Amino acid sequence: MRHLTTLLDLSTEQVLEILASAKSLKAAWAAGRREPKLAGHVLVQLFEKPSLRTRVSFEVAMAHLGGSSCFLSAKDAGLDGREPEADIAQVVGGYADVIVLRTFRQSLIDTFVEHSGRPVVNGLSDDYHPCQALTDVMTAEEHFGDVAGRKLAYIGDGNNVAKSLALICAHVGMDFTIAAPEGFQLPDEFLSDLKGKLPNASAAQFTNPFDAVEGADVVYTDVWASMGQEAEKEHRAKAFEGFQVNEKLFGAANSDAVFMHCLPARRGLEVSAEVMDNPRSVVFPQAENRMHLAKGLFAWLLEK
Amino acid sequence: MRHLTTLLDLSTEQVLEILASAKSLKAAWAAGRREPKLAGHVLVQLFEKPSLRTRVSFEVAMAHLGGSSCFLSAKDAGLDGREPEADIAQVVGGYADVIVLRTFRQSLIDTFVEHSGRPVVNGLSDDYHPCQALTDVMTAEEHFGDVAGRKLAYIGDGNNVAKSLALICAHVGMDFTIAAPEGFQLPDEFLSDLKGKLPNASAAQFTNPFDAVEGADVVYTDVWASMGQEAEKEHRAKAFEGFQVNEKLFGAANSDAVFMHCLPARRGLEVSAEVMDNPRSVVFPQAENRMHLAKGLFAWLLEK
Amino acid sequence: MRHLTTLLDLSTEQVLEILASAKSLKAAWAAGRREPKLAGHVLVQLFEKPSLRTRVSFEVAMAHLGGSSCFLSAKDAGLDGREPEADIAQVVGGYADVIVLRTFRQSLIDTFVEHSGRPVVNGLSDDYHPCQALTDVMTAEEHFGDVAGRKLAYIGDGNNVAKSLALICAHVGMDFTIAAPEGFQLPDEFLSDLKGKLPNASAAQFTNPFDAVEGADVVYTDVWASMGQEAEKEHRAKAFEGFQVNEKLFGAANSDAVFMHCLPARRGLEVSAEVMDNPRSVVFPQAENRMHLAKGLFAWLLEK
Repeated sequence: MRHLTTLLDLSTEQVLEILASAKSLKAAWAAGRREPKLAGHVLVQLFEKPSLRTRVSFEVAMAHLGGSSCFLSAKDAGLDGREPEADIAQVVGGYADVIVLRTFRQSLIDTFVEHSGRPVVNGLSDDYHPCQALTDVMTAEEHFGDVAGRKLAYIGDGNNVAKSLALICAHVGMDFTIAAPEGFQLPDEFLSDLKGKLPNASAAQFTNPFDAVEGADVVYTDVWASMGQEAEKEHRAKAFEGFQVNEKLFGAANSDAVFMHCLPARRGLEVSAEVMDNPRSVVFPQAENRMHLAKGLFAWLLEK
Repeated sequence: MRHLTTLLDLSTEQVLEILASAKSLKAAWAAGRREPKLAGHVLVQLFEKPSLRTRVSFEVAMAHLGGSSCFLSAKDAGLDGREPEADIAQVVGGYADVIVLRTFRQSLIDTFVEHSGRPVVNGLSDDYHPCQALTDVMTAEEHFGDVAGRKLAYIGDGNNVAKSLALICAHVGMDFTIAAPEGFQLPDEFLSDLKGKLPNASAAQFTNPFDAVEGADVVYTDVWASMGQEAEKEHRAKAFEGFQVNEKLFGAANSDAVFMHCLPARRGLEVSAEVMDNPRSVVFPQAENRMHLAKGLFAWLLEK
Repeated sequence: MRHLTTLLDLSTEQVLEILASAKSLKAAWAAGRREPKLAGHVLVQLFEKPSLRTRVSFEVAMAHLGGSSCFLSAKDAGLDGREPEADIAQVVGGYADVIVLRTFRQSLIDTFVEHSGRPVVNGLSDDYHPCQALTDVMTAEEHFGDVAGRKLAYIGDGNNVAKSLALICAHVGMDFTIAAPEGFQLPDEFLSDLKGKLPNASAAQFTNPFDAVEGADVVYTDVWASMGQEAEKEHRAKAFEGFQVNEKLFGAANSDAVFMHCLPARRGLEVSAEVMDNPRSVVFPQAENRMHLAKGLFAWLLEK
């Protein structure tokens, strides 16, 4: 049974299969071909935090494929302690064809993989955000064609998004750089997992953002304080001073570089309004691609 | 691209097209013809306040047409300040085929019209309630046949419903009267917009409800304090004393007049139980017509 | 019009029809036949308390049959006093093809039967849980084949589940025993309703759980404190000391007996982990059967 829990667990071949599946379904959709491949199939989404893009893109993906969705908050599902997680996984597995979790804990995803008997998708955890990273490479490929040998520079917190970008870049042969202040860099343990799994990975970490964007084709950032980190907001804003992707920093990348952001964005903090709303900003096509990636992913997961 | 933001923005021809579309789909449904015209299409609803009729009628309309729905509260969508409204509009527009908003602010609807790239429906704002008014005329036409020259008397607050009724009456050639206490009447600015847009509009405002219902074919009321006005409840109940639609007032209209209410109703306040539950009360067929109107509207908005 | 409000209101023939419908649809599904029998049909679910199994199993059942679902919390629906219940029932009936209620009060179900004009399903009330009991017998029949003459022993509170099990056992010819401490037994009034309606019912009540499980083919328990009884938790835990279904008690039933639980379960309270996770525990197939039973039920309710 196939799952998408982290890009560490997929082979490069599987990553390429998912991307190909997404691109092919997007093209079919654009051509007006609406084949209900997953008619009668049901997605159950179980979310520990609110979400716009993740929830809606998965629901719409399922609808485009002819299937249905059922959305459960943590409280709806009994994740408030009403029932052991393994029992919830087994019960939900009896009803769902595929399960998407948005959770703080990677361990909840593992529990569902072990007990649900169904394909499980990590729709965001504190550790990884694989659907976002797959979407980002899909978007880069739409813009640049083949991306092997191109460079993605991520400016900001060494979080779930950064890790997943480092992994996907290694899978598709892109150079990955990250610039983050001390204390917010990618953990050494992650970097050694990355090199262990994908020895050809090109990943370099900097504390000066200008070092990271040199020669970059994609400049990427994320909010400085993610959901759940509201208390650290001021502390983080201070630590990330000088890491804003503004015209000066964006201008230091390649002249045809594009700007990406997984949204929501805070103009004036991690990105200036000029860059966010720049003609070379692809943040909204990128957001739309979440839906197309989800279609490709569901088709790949449920393929007989 | 077509939208339904206020009846001020539609031509009379467009209003008649929507009504015709709704009636035709209702007749097809009654005859057992269930054509999935909008298979694979997705409605996104984004609501700032809870709702029974609006939400369910739109969801069921979409289901009858073979499409799907995704419901977002303000918090789900990030309208709590998590993300700029224009960004939310653009992201949602990437996923949805059509968007319904239920909001306090007409300006949010304008933002979605500008940024989403999709047909946008005002499912209720503080200013207008166009879907309700279209439904009401559809219901009147089912009862009376042609309604041109007939009279609708609205007793109560000069609110979003009252304004939309004044507009739809002007579009279909009905006389509109309203009785409201001083301080709760239709604003002069609205009346001049109405006359500016639809010079043949027949709209008269009274402070004595008996003046308004004279010769009326439809007697209509709404709650005295809408959702969000709970604090003004007592003050309003006092101001509207004498404006209850009871047997005496309803009896002063035409002898075959019907009673309408957009619900929920408070028997004993704005309407007596005798009138609400009268054989000439059409409030429940009217509520059901919200769904049929929504079908007609979606078909009209998404027509190629 | 057909409803499922309590098993007291159904004839034995109707009970058998629902079970046959569920089994036939489950077999068709297993064989890969996905017929959208209820395409274009809409289920409205209205829940006064959160739920995992009930909500998801009904939604997925509808999806498998090609239909759609709309879920409303009590607040969404206006059951917080915003609108009279009879009005809500009539409005929802104008939109829905079938309505499932999960409620504290059996009287709300009666209101919907009276005013909605649609088939109404009791998805759990303080008095009855008919869908669960139908599911349980379906599960027992899958395990044992014909269940007539077999014995089901229920250990625990004489609650909605216990009552519905007593009723379904009477319908299908199973012996029913219950062991509960004084003060938590089945009410005399219920037992006399049971015997009045189904004179052949075999129902015996004990205070010693070992008396109840003697010769039992199914040993069944439920939580000691249901949702809404959190305040009584300690008091109940004390009263039910000695009523845990553990290896000793389960071992006193027939050697091929199965264990059932309507879930969520509290290992270490009403059931030991050894029994809950025993190879003869069928709690998860039982949970999955909620969905298959729901399909059979919808097909039966909406059959022309």
